[in-house]
Amino acid sequence: MSEGSSVPGVLRVGLIGHGFMGRMHSLAWQTAGRAVELPLVPELTAIAGRNAEAVDRAARAWGWRSATDDWRSLIERDDIDVIDITTPGALHAEIALAALAAGKHVLCEKPLANTLEQARAMTAAARDAAARGVQSMVGFNYRRTPALALARDLVAQGRIGEIRHVRAVYLQDWINDPEFPLVWRLRREEAGSGALGDLGAHIVDLAYFLTGRRITGLSALTRTFVEERPLATSASGLSGAAGSERGRVTVDDAAVFFADCEGGAIATFEATRFAPGRKNAMRIEVNGSNGSVAFDFEAMNELLFYDATGDSAGAGFTRILATEPQHPYLDAWWPPGHGLGYDHTFVNQKRDLVEAIAAGKPPTPSFADGLYVQSVLAAVQDSARNKSGWTAVPTGSTEEGTR
Amino acid sequence: MSEGSSVPGVLRVGLIGHGFMGRMHSLAWQTAGRAVELPLVPELTAIAGRNAEAVDRAARAWGWRSATDDWRSLIERDDIDVIDITTPGALHAEIALAALAAGKHVLCEKPLANTLEQARAMTAAARDAAARGVQSMVGFNYRRTPALALARDLVAQGRIGEIRHVRAVYLQDWINDPEFPLVWRLRREEAGSGALGDLGAHIVDLAYFLTGRRITGLSALTRTFVEERPLATSASGLSGAAGSERGRVTVDDAAVFFADCEGGAIATFEATRFAPGRKNAMRIEVNGSNGSVAFDFEAMNELLFYDATGDSAGAGFTRILATEPQHPYLDAWWPPGHGLGYDHTFVNQKRDLVEAIAAGKPPTPSFADGLYVQSVLAAVQDSARNKSGWTAVPTGSTEEGTR
Amino acid sequence: MSEGSSVPGVLRVGLIGHGFMGRMHSLAWQTAGRAVELPLVPELTAIAGRNAEAVDRAARAWGWRSATDDWRSLIERDDIDVIDITTPGALHAEIALAALAAGKHVLCEKPLANTLEQARAMTAAARDAAARGVQSMVGFNYRRTPALALARDLVAQGRIGEIRHVRAVYLQDWINDPEFPLVWRLRREEAGSGALGDLGAHIVDLAYFLTGRRITGLSALTRTFVEERPLATSASGLSGAAGSERGRVTVDDAAVFFADCEGGAIATFEATRFAPGRKNAMRIEVNGSNGSVAFDFEAMNELLFYDATGDSAGAGFTRILATEPQHPYLDAWWPPGHGLGYDHTFVNQKRDLVEAIAAGKPPTPSFADGLYVQSVLAAVQDSARNKSGWTAVPTGSTEEGTR
Amino acid sequence: MSEGSSVPGVLRVGLIGHGFMGRMHSLAWQTAGRAVELPLVPELTAIAGRNAEAVDRAARAWGWRSATDDWRSLIERDDIDVIDITTPGALHAEIALAALAAGKHVLCEKPLANTLEQARAMTAAARDAAARGVQSMVGFNYRRTPALALARDLVAQGRIGEIRHVRAVYLQDWINDPEFPLVWRLRREEAGSGALGDLGAHIVDLAYFLTGRRITGLSALTRTFVEERPLATSASGLSGAAGSERGRVTVDDAAVFFADCEGGAIATFEATRFAPGRKNAMRIEVNGSNGSVAFDFEAMNELLFYDATGDSAGAGFTRILATEPQHPYLDAWWPPGHGLGYDHTFVNQKRDLVEAIAAGKPPTPSFADGLYVQSVLAAVQDSARNKSGWTAVPTGSTEEGTR
Repeated sequence: MSEGSSVPGVLRVGLIGHGFMGRMHSLAWQTAGRAVELPLVPELTAIAGRNAEAVDRAARAWGWRSATDDWRSLIERDDIDVIDITTPGALHAEIALAALAAGKHVLCEKPLANTLEQARAMTAAARDAAARGVQSMVGFNYRRTPALALARDLVAQGRIGEIRHVRAVYLQDWINDPEFPLVWRLRREEAGSGALGDLGAHIVDLAYFLTGRRITGLSALTRTFVEERPLATSASGLSGAAGSERGRVTVDDAAVFFADCEGGAIATFEATRFAPGRKNAMRIEVNGSNGSVAFDFEAMNELLFYDATGDSAGAGFTRILATEPQHPYLDAWWPPGHGLGYDHTFVNQKRDLVEAIAAGKPPTPSFADGLYVQSVLAAVQDSARNKSGWTAVPTGSTEEGTR
Repeated sequence: MSEGSSVPGVLRVGLIGHGFMGRMHSLAWQTAGRAVELPLVPELTAIAGRNAEAVDRAARAWGWRSATDDWRSLIERDDIDVIDITTPGALHAEIALAALAAGKHVLCEKPLANTLEQARAMTAAARDAAARGVQSMVGFNYRRTPALALARDLVAQGRIGEIRHVRAVYLQDWINDPEFPLVWRLRREEAGSGALGDLGAHIVDLAYFLTGRRITGLSALTRTFVEERPLATSASGLSGAAGSERGRVTVDDAAVFFADCEGGAIATFEATRFAPGRKNAMRIEVNGSNGSVAFDFEAMNELLFYDATGDSAGAGFTRILATEPQHPYLDAWWPPGHGLGYDHTFVNQKRDLVEAIAAGKPPTPSFADGLYVQSVLAAVQDSARNKSGWTAVPTGSTEEGTR
Repeated sequence: MSEGSSVPGVLRVGLIGHGFMGRMHSLAWQTAGRAVELPLVPELTAIAGRNAEAVDRAARAWGWRSATDDWRSLIERDDIDVIDITTPGALHAEIALAALAAGKHVLCEKPLANTLEQARAMTAAARDAAARGVQSMVGFNYRRTPALALARDLVAQGRIGEIRHVRAVYLQDWINDPEFPLVWRLRREEAGSGALGDLGAHIVDLAYFLTGRRITGLSALTRTFVEERPLATSASGLSGAAGSERGRVTVDDAAVFFADCEGGAIATFEATRFAPGRKNAMRIEVNGSNGSVAFDFEAMNELLFYDATGDSAGAGFTRILATEPQHPYLDAWWPPGHGLGYDHTFVNQKRDLVEAIAAGKPPTPSFADGLYVQSVLAAVQDSARNKSGWTAVPTGSTEEGTR
Repeated sequence: MSEGSSVPGVLRVGLIGHGFMGRMHSLAWQTAGRAVELPLVPELTAIAGRNAEAVDRAARAWGWRSATDDWRSLIERDDIDVIDITTPGALHAEIALAALAAGKHVLCEKPLANTLEQARAMTAAARDAAARGVQSMVGFNYRRTPALALARDLVAQGRIGEIRHVRAVYLQDWINDPEFPLVWRLRREEAGSGALGDLGAHIVDLAYFLTGRRITGLSALTRTFVEERPLATSASGLSGAAGSERGRVTVDDAAVFFADCEGGAIATFEATRFAPGRKNAMRIEVNGSNGSVAFDFEAMNELLFYDATGDSAGAGFTRILATEPQHPYLDAWWPPGHGLGYDHTFVNQKRDLVEAIAAGKPPTPSFADGLYVQSVLAAVQDSARNKSGWTAVPTGSTEEGTR
């Protein structure tokens, strides 16, 4: 908790970043306090961003009480309890380290950092901060999809038995057009990697979230299909106008890898932005000795579950609409069959974070979990550079992972 | 059994009709003896049809030992055990009555007849014949879809409880084009009715097959969207070349009705040939107090089953691939997950008929069941003519229906 | 606009009702101003409800500036511009008439009223108010589902041609258990009707929204499967604790009807709360001479579209993920493939209402549209009482419907 | 053509093997001549198998004119035109080489052989035989699934543009139970490999069939999850009774690999028999610069097609029911929407083979295509043995592949 005296019952939030992710987090902080009764009510205290005018506009539109183009000023303020980081990955480490040092709780968007070294430093800082009651969390929002939280519960209860296969793809098509401009997400200096870090990070995290098993080694291949693109004339990571000059794409367009997991399971992964028609097909299936679970974010309210131990004539994949009162997070939401959207994963995330802070317990996924994902991504890049040679993922840390 | 001495272990078949249905039955008789071990091996003894040249060609192509353009000669032959009728509905009664009188077992394609009066006469004749050990069956082949037979078993076992709703549609689009010619299926004199008898008959039968409950009364609406069409210059019921002259469509293009069923359930039905994109969407869902079953023939190897009595967090419709060894009819077919096609419903039908004849037991569905369906269709036409007024379906018979 | 001077750029909202629908509207008013740039920013000025304590709690939780247990006081206040009515149907008419008389814009949840007489009075009042620049809208939120708005656009553009069939069901299962208590939605005095008004109203509205064709006559059947239930010991319409005494269910559990539409199409409808496994299966399909559209709210981000005029080898139902920038309402929402939820239909509704008020144009659906739906529901009840006899739907009004 | 004078218009078939595949081929040869008009009518001349009694029974049941337990006698007979090989892979080479040397056309089930050396010898022999007008074909029956043949046509027409991704899995679960016995398919001596050769071979062939691009290099991982099983007390490859003694599983239970393809595409593959609930999930998706195709054999009559070049508001995956007259092979089959089954892939295969033989043209897939698949499988095994190291697939042959 920050040094200034916190108003009882309120959690004062400072958000850094006002792009697409900044907007998602703003809406989620707004809704979190209204959709469910929280032990601390979030207050949208301040927002910071690079562009003074744009951040002012964002503050007004999204309900933040103050705005600044100096993110450091948020960390210096003693009326802010939590720093929420939604900038490009290159800034994560600097901001998070400063915030933790100042005693702010930190929520940091994924990937944790652009380099393994930064991620290690952040994890060490988070461990130290935790000892002082200062919490940190990495923003793998998809864990908060009710259908995936349900899948994780079923697996944790042993409903599918011993894990043998994980099969995960994350398919999009938004840069399929070779004339789509060279936005920051296509430049290594800012984004660290391409589909790998943007999409692959999510499925690596989910494979671990669902099974509790980490990857120990892997072989990988990456590919850049379109090597030059028009320079972007505007700054968004997701869209932009194309100019007439061209520049070099310095990240992967697609990454594929297979892996060994703790406990003997094998896992396959694919992340691509070149799958026409697949808009946000984050798909993951886990096969165990007693059953299977399968999920596709394009039908995010559904979980498929196969129970190999039951009545054989009636066996098949059950399509569970994870919209019922008995499902994870659903106490906050709608009647049966009334679906949730992408934004609800962020609201559920804020809820979990606020409850953890109020209870003085470490939220999940931790920075150590974020470091684990970065280690896998680094191993993918190493293997890809090394003719797909088998590459071990260093276990590195004595900390227990947190599902 | 016909009077001539039957060769032991063989069932000698005479087929009448060499259109599309004649071909389906021919292939099915061929395959039935090979796909599964039967108590009597079918022999394709003779085929009869209106056109001598065409029936000769059909006999050669499909493996019949002899051919004739005189269907009566088949009934007179004493080396034929079973008469299989696949002609247009207008001929069913005459042929079936003659065959039963001659002591031949009869398989008659649906609908049983074009008029209720004919259907009643056929049912009475079948009842008399049964007393002499001569069997008869009406050809509702869809009952032999493994997924539907499984649905029926689940309902009969009480897995969905007390029946409350039946919801059935049969949607096709093959005459959606107003220039599609006036084939025999669009003429009342030959076809009796349109979508109602062709498609509606199947779903009325299936509603009864699945639930064991008959319709007691109904309200109906029929519609002919395209009232004139080019005269057909060739004779098929399903396709044909269009000429320049036009004629009047004298059957319904679509029929909708809802009904009260024995035991308090309500049922809805729709049959149409004007649903673009729906190629053979015969869909039926039954809701009971404890669960539901749902089926779509366009995915004919799948049954959806919902069990309302189980684990609530894991509840949902289970997609059962009815292709496993433990499913109905599957002992004759392929390994798990290797689908069946439309033709297998006919092979399964032959199998059931042969086994019933060999055992000297009445096969199902009986002519009485066919009469029941005709009674419902007649009530639909009465109600439609009478401003959709509520119309009782006469129970008529003391016989128990046979599921 | 109310007589007091409106703060420029702000739309001051007074909400009446703090049940489930009150919560949905509260969240939607909150989000509407943040998700998209609106010409008037909604202000959550006041909330009214029957229970003073509960409405106070709701005001704090959902962000309303003031609370009262006297709904009339909201209408008397001159700092409120729009009255949003989410009470049970029995109160709709009294509130709406008072609000319109006071010059407040009105958003009234569906069904417009519990009786046709009330609906007529409301429609007349709305017409008079409109002449004074006071707008009114009935809350059929499902029209604001992007996939359905897209379907309507495709139909309006003639993409499926001349309409022939509408096929709509709305299936739920939340009162399937006979021990579920007798909540207000199961009592005619408060709810007007059962599944018919709650669910059937939506699909009647959508059939009109999608096709622009009104129902002219119909035949109907209604059914109450569970005639007595435990009295509820708490007051929600959707859930509650069961006591030991029992009371009579006075509404329908299910309603089925078929209808003639303007222009020669035929339509079928079914509404039930007794379809186990169907959680919110609001399904509608429209078949035209050139194609079809189909939708299921359980997969609310998807529209199925069949184009019968294109390349025949590649023809089939296209599953459109209505989550792309080019789809209706999506400029306010997420990147491709990132789904929306049930709540977004309400936010889109507020957006449309605010834009209409700001432009001084009548929003849709109008009270006249709500009256039309009530007229259909009344005809359903008349037909059901009259042995399913054909019943005309009075056209009643000279106003043009508004899609 | 064999030396003895062939009866004009007849193609005399000798089948070797009477297990599950022998039965499939028998039914297919029976049906092929009846379902479609062929230039040569297949005659089921003789069947050979190891067990004299069993092969006699098979001959009677499936309609073969003669039976023998000496496969060499079939090759010596001059009244046989084509030898159809359905034995375990270990015998393929010896039989095929003898048959080709004797001037018989050969259809050989996949995989072509258990070793690369055998496959090379067979391919060389087939090339020599072709020069003498003697044809050969390897039995990748799934190419004859109409939906996949349609996919191939769309790709060949350029409808999806330049290929970037192939994503193929073949998932089954039939040996998931560790007590399932050690049938021949689990022993390297007879089966060559496990899931890799049985399932992986099909998807390697299909990736090539669909795209026309060969794999040039790959990395792979294989795994045996259950290392010991009860010895089988009966001889089938697909099922059997378990005894009390145990033996070692000497093949892979699962294989995963990714690959570079000619032209720059990347491909991923997974074959496993340990995916509970996946009965025959042979799934393949191809992404190109202008669109995608996707297929799942568990819904074998459906092809998903995405066209990225069309109307953006209406874009989405189109579910094509490949059951229409305009689709590949469908001239031989049923009306629209009436599905085909697994067996029809074999009938279509016979049809293509007979037409090629009659035309004197080489059928596809050729033995060279089978050798290519074997080369990929060998590279997979090499890579897996070599810590997943990148392994080139030798191009080996100057022959053009045949799609």
